[in-house]
Amino acid sequence: MNVADSAVRGVLEGYKAAVFAKDVDAFVALYADDVQVFDMWGRWSHRGLEAWRAMAAEWFGSVGTERVVVDFSDVQTVVSPDLAVAHAFVTYTALAADGTKLRSLDNRMTVALKPHGGVWKIVHEHTSAPIDFETTKAIFKR
Amino acid sequence: MNVADSAVRGVLEGYKAAVFAKDVDAFVALYADDVQVFDMWGRWSHRGLEAWRAMAAEWFGSVGTERVVVDFSDVQTVVSPDLAVAHAFVTYTALAADGTKLRSLDNRMTVALKPHGGVWKIVHEHTSAPIDFETTKAIFKR
Repeated sequence: MNVADSAVRGVLEGYKAAVFAKDVDAFVALYADDVQVFDMWGRWSHRGLEAWRAMAAEWFGSVGTERVVVDFSDVQTVVSPDLAVAHAFVTYTALAADGTKLRSLDNRMTVALKPHGGVWKIVHEHTSAPIDFETTKAIFKR
Repeated sequence: MNVADSAVRGVLEGYKAAVFAKDVDAFVALYADDVQVFDMWGRWSHRGLEAWRAMAAEWFGSVGTERVVVDFSDVQTVVSPDLAVAHAFVTYTALAADGTKLRSLDNRMTVALKPHGGVWKIVHEHTSAPIDFETTKAIFKR
């Protein structure tokens, strides 16, 4: 595992921590100013950090007293000195305030990262679930 | 536009041509042997070129006498000497044998590419449509 690979995996750890803490600033700090996100929910694209911040604020605000635990599995990275890509399966698990598991949802995530002054930041993110051909509904479980 | 950027856009042109021609070999030649694809339809992941070839053969076989025209819009590229990422909106339009437009569908696509002996090939692809939060159905139109 080289420096870039390690940095990329560090960003994923930062994502987990920011979501668990419902910390919008920590979350947004993982992304570049000109990030473009193809998010799973409702919109074709979020362009720029302010749009993405608004999504995070709404998401974390909607969580209430619950917590969201993020788990990455089957993480694959492709790294170069000045560009990296990671893709993984992601499970989002909602916990009640007392720690009881309420529900969970699987996603697929692809991120592209570039170093910004020595810190790797996400310049593009794409999350989704596959679509059932017959019902055109999302399949939320692997 | 540098060499890598130009090569990446060439791969997208190759994708359009292979789909229009329903040419499985030309399509598969755009991908690396160890490609992993997060495709929009039905499955969480396709691993390796043989799995992806099977998808292409099934897709092109299902098209019958129709043709599929692929259009990329809002193509963004991030390139480095040995890794590149492109993302775009993609419209797939089905034409009848006489050229009549039958239907069309929008997607979001992210691809990561690496040079293999001077030829850039797709090592990872992620396609999706956003999901409506209320119905959990895919939104197929931008």
